[in-house]
Amino acid sequence: MRRHKPDSGWKHKIHEVIYEADTPLGKGFDIILIILIIVSVIIVMLESIKELDAKYHSILLAFEWIITIFFTIEYIARVASIKKPFKYIFSFYGIIDLLSTIPLYISYILAGSQVLLAIRALRLLRVFRILKLVQFLGEASQLKSALKASRAKIIVFLFAVLIVSVLLGTLMYLVEGEDAGFTSIPISIYWTIVTLTTVGYGDIAPITPQGQFIATLIMLVGYGIIAVPTGIVTVEFGKQKQGNSNAKEGTYVHVNTQSCPSCSAEGHRDDATHCYNCGSKL
Amino acid sequence: MRRHKPDSGWKHKIHEVIYEADTPLGKGFDIILIILIIVSVIIVMLESIKELDAKYHSILLAFEWIITIFFTIEYIARVASIKKPFKYIFSFYGIIDLLSTIPLYISYILAGSQVLLAIRALRLLRVFRILKLVQFLGEASQLKSALKASRAKIIVFLFAVLIVSVLLGTLMYLVEGEDAGFTSIPISIYWTIVTLTTVGYGDIAPITPQGQFIATLIMLVGYGIIAVPTGIVTVEFGKQKQGNSNAKEGTYVHVNTQSCPSCSAEGHRDDATHCYNCGSKL
Amino acid sequence: MRRHKPDSGWKHKIHEVIYEADTPLGKGFDIILIILIIVSVIIVMLESIKELDAKYHSILLAFEWIITIFFTIEYIARVASIKKPFKYIFSFYGIIDLLSTIPLYISYILAGSQVLLAIRALRLLRVFRILKLVQFLGEASQLKSALKASRAKIIVFLFAVLIVSVLLGTLMYLVEGEDAGFTSIPISIYWTIVTLTTVGYGDIAPITPQGQFIATLIMLVGYGIIAVPTGIVTVEFGKQKQGNSNAKEGTYVHVNTQSCPSCSAEGHRDDATHCYNCGSKL
Amino acid sequence: MRRHKPDSGWKHKIHEVIYEADTPLGKGFDIILIILIIVSVIIVMLESIKELDAKYHSILLAFEWIITIFFTIEYIARVASIKKPFKYIFSFYGIIDLLSTIPLYISYILAGSQVLLAIRALRLLRVFRILKLVQFLGEASQLKSALKASRAKIIVFLFAVLIVSVLLGTLMYLVEGEDAGFTSIPISIYWTIVTLTTVGYGDIAPITPQGQFIATLIMLVGYGIIAVPTGIVTVEFGKQKQGNSNAKEGTYVHVNTQSCPSCSAEGHRDDATHCYNCGSKL
Repeated sequence: MRRHKPDSGWKHKIHEVIYEADTPLGKGFDIILIILIIVSVIIVMLESIKELDAKYHSILLAFEWIITIFFTIEYIARVASIKKPFKYIFSFYGIIDLLSTIPLYISYILAGSQVLLAIRALRLLRVFRILKLVQFLGEASQLKSALKASRAKIIVFLFAVLIVSVLLGTLMYLVEGEDAGFTSIPISIYWTIVTLTTVGYGDIAPITPQGQFIATLIMLVGYGIIAVPTGIVTVEFGKQKQGNSNAKEGTYVHVNTQSCPSCSAEGHRDDATHCYNCGSKL
Repeated sequence: MRRHKPDSGWKHKIHEVIYEADTPLGKGFDIILIILIIVSVIIVMLESIKELDAKYHSILLAFEWIITIFFTIEYIARVASIKKPFKYIFSFYGIIDLLSTIPLYISYILAGSQVLLAIRALRLLRVFRILKLVQFLGEASQLKSALKASRAKIIVFLFAVLIVSVLLGTLMYLVEGEDAGFTSIPISIYWTIVTLTTVGYGDIAPITPQGQFIATLIMLVGYGIIAVPTGIVTVEFGKQKQGNSNAKEGTYVHVNTQSCPSCSAEGHRDDATHCYNCGSKL
Repeated sequence: MRRHKPDSGWKHKIHEVIYEADTPLGKGFDIILIILIIVSVIIVMLESIKELDAKYHSILLAFEWIITIFFTIEYIARVASIKKPFKYIFSFYGIIDLLSTIPLYISYILAGSQVLLAIRALRLLRVFRILKLVQFLGEASQLKSALKASRAKIIVFLFAVLIVSVLLGTLMYLVEGEDAGFTSIPISIYWTIVTLTTVGYGDIAPITPQGQFIATLIMLVGYGIIAVPTGIVTVEFGKQKQGNSNAKEGTYVHVNTQSCPSCSAEGHRDDATHCYNCGSKL
Repeated sequence: MRRHKPDSGWKHKIHEVIYEADTPLGKGFDIILIILIIVSVIIVMLESIKELDAKYHSILLAFEWIITIFFTIEYIARVASIKKPFKYIFSFYGIIDLLSTIPLYISYILAGSQVLLAIRALRLLRVFRILKLVQFLGEASQLKSALKASRAKIIVFLFAVLIVSVLLGTLMYLVEGEDAGFTSIPISIYWTIVTLTTVGYGDIAPITPQGQFIATLIMLVGYGIIAVPTGIVTVEFGKQKQGNSNAKEGTYVHVNTQSCPSCSAEGHRDDATHCYNCGSKL
């Protein structure tokens, strides 16, 4: 097949290195990419600290240029080596790749776009793709399917929490007023959610006895209903686990790894003396 | 039947549109209503923000009048189209409907009743009725029945938490005194619940070593007993799930694998001496 | 028997009224007692609010005297009517009863013992005894036995949490120092527990980057290990529940409330046509 | 054997006392050691409180010397009585033992090493070894194996939480800016974790409406996903418990109720065509 398209040789090779993780080269590429992504995110963080940026600006910028050039080459290679480049460019990870490559270029073109540089933190999202490739997330798939199964119920729950928060927030706005910091209904709703989720910043806190009484009720409600999402996920997760072992309900017996000498059937009962498949002695 | 009461024709039609969600008209009406309710609640919120209200007061008021008029017509239509209007008027949702319609009218009649306008946030409660009609809450029914089943236990639990809070709050009042903000026993109880539920505003915090020691104990207790409501709801919720497969509710007895000697019926009670099917001795 | 001890007549009657809740008089006595206890605790709370105490001191005092006299009579009656008075006096509830009766007397005898008045809040503990008598706590017994079963594990867990808190608290003391409020190791341990239990007052908060990094780790640990007591109680509680319904494992069928017309045996299968006990037709 | 090495007599005896807890002497030694460790940790704490250290410095130092000397003798005895001293010296507990013995000596040798004295708090880690010896942690082994079994999933979960925190922290840095205290991306990430874990110090809190809106979302996410570690541990812990009754681990297959026509053996695999017991056709 490949004989007909002589250029598909290097295309195929690049594709293998960039998109797969089975070959040593592909694995090495992924590891370098992960390190570069993490280094790049750390640089974004360090740049945001004024003192460090003032001191080491040129070093950080040099590192940033190296990473940006690497990402640029990688992006071009990705587009070049794939069969349907447009499908990749407009896919979720395609956009993330572009967004995490261009900020440095744009900061030179547009004035005042320094803020855009923080977008580079999105590069962290790329870690997920690589992890997916190297199938490290095997452990996470159970978590994900348990969360997916309980998603509908959790959304209904959060929706109910939101309605209750709007009502209680409005009530607190009426009861407490502006002295305690409840300056508007949205602020009161913000405070209600801060309280209901047991976060409790304390930037706003009730000062009137009746406000503190309602706050107490909100806390007890929040303390009580935290059980609901937990209950949902636990039950779903428990089901998930069971689902793995029993496709079918009924009685189960222990089988060993012994295989029948005549028909090679596996999975015999521990106390079996004959093969369940061909009847010959074990 | 309808021939005898010529006016029941439009009554029936209005009833169908307002109270049901099976017809396209009824569904459309519900969707408009949900949008209006949400818009109206957002207006209430925006009005409470001083700057926005100063700037866009007339626009917000115009919107508010449109919604109020729509709700007024809807309320009248509801009363007119139902067979037992008084039962509706004094029902929970009837009162909510009235309360969410009249505030704007009253604010013109009574001076200083501006505060009442916030009552319009109660309109959000109406969302529940509509959701009920369109049976969106199918997902929520399981949550509700699990919560209902564990209600009694959660109340007992919160009651115990409350008694413990009163005792520990009094103790903290004695130990900390007024310097740390524990100015009275009710305030101390408020603080205890803030701590026990792990909210922790920090508006009041112990400053003496012995007070901080007791606070530490309260936190550990709160951290430990949060498990109790979670455990209750999880177990109830797990049961609920299982309950879906058990078709019928009621009492269950243990049956053995014995089969009747005369009619071969299986599933006899352990203490059965006769077959439940043919009556012959077992 | 009672003929021989003529005085045991009223003793027995008082005992019945005070210690039991089966007769109408005994039930009425318990209800009055609960109300008085709650009223008395509310008075203790109100007295602690300076403004209210200044205004209504004489009214609150009058109420307090009425309750104290009632409790005094009740205490004497309890001692007089019981067979082993000393066993009662030195029992847990006997001491609580005495402590909740005498503070008002002592405040007249000893100067500066005003503080003791708050001890009256202990009266709330008496509610538990009454609740026990009227067997309201039927719902709570399951909670209690689940907690009792998981007690050992929760203590081991809290013990481990404590050791970790001491170590991390010491580390934070070394890292943060006095500027951030970590003035001594006990204070740092207090802060660590505040953080680990997700209470988070904010009265003390790390200000150095390395301190904030360790704080972040403590939070994530606290957020992760809150699962442990929850898991323990949930599993114990689930076991408790199962224990109630299946003393025996096996298959269960639905039974109805029908009773056999000839032998009155109850608990027949829904599809039974003959009594499982006598074999007669149902 | 011991006859050939006359000095192994006291070595063996010391080993028995120090390393074992079966004999009365060994048990007594362990109890003294636990008390000394706890006393020593309390001394470290008290010394860190300026006022107490100023007042009772000499008493605390005296106690410290007694404990240090005891620990020194114990350390030497441990090294002397064990067969492979180097293995012990470089083991985890060997290093802890050394670190908890030498600080007092070093504080005399090196100036400014006062800070090192807090390292003595590490002595608390030694409690674990003793507890292990006296097998008090029997209750804890279940906890440990449940945590070990769910470790991989909890790490994946915390890893996902961390990535989300970096992304949301960067977003908050862009949205809130320096006025609200979000002075750099690392600080914003710190704040995000404080919020997500529902700790909520309040030292940094959003002040712009859009910042408060994002904060609200973070809180709801944190409130919702706390269910995940709980679900994991609960299910693992439940399995652990069940595992105790299921004697053997391994693979299980579904068996049906079919019985062999020739030998009446029951419990055949669903796909069996021959009896596992006698080999005759089913």
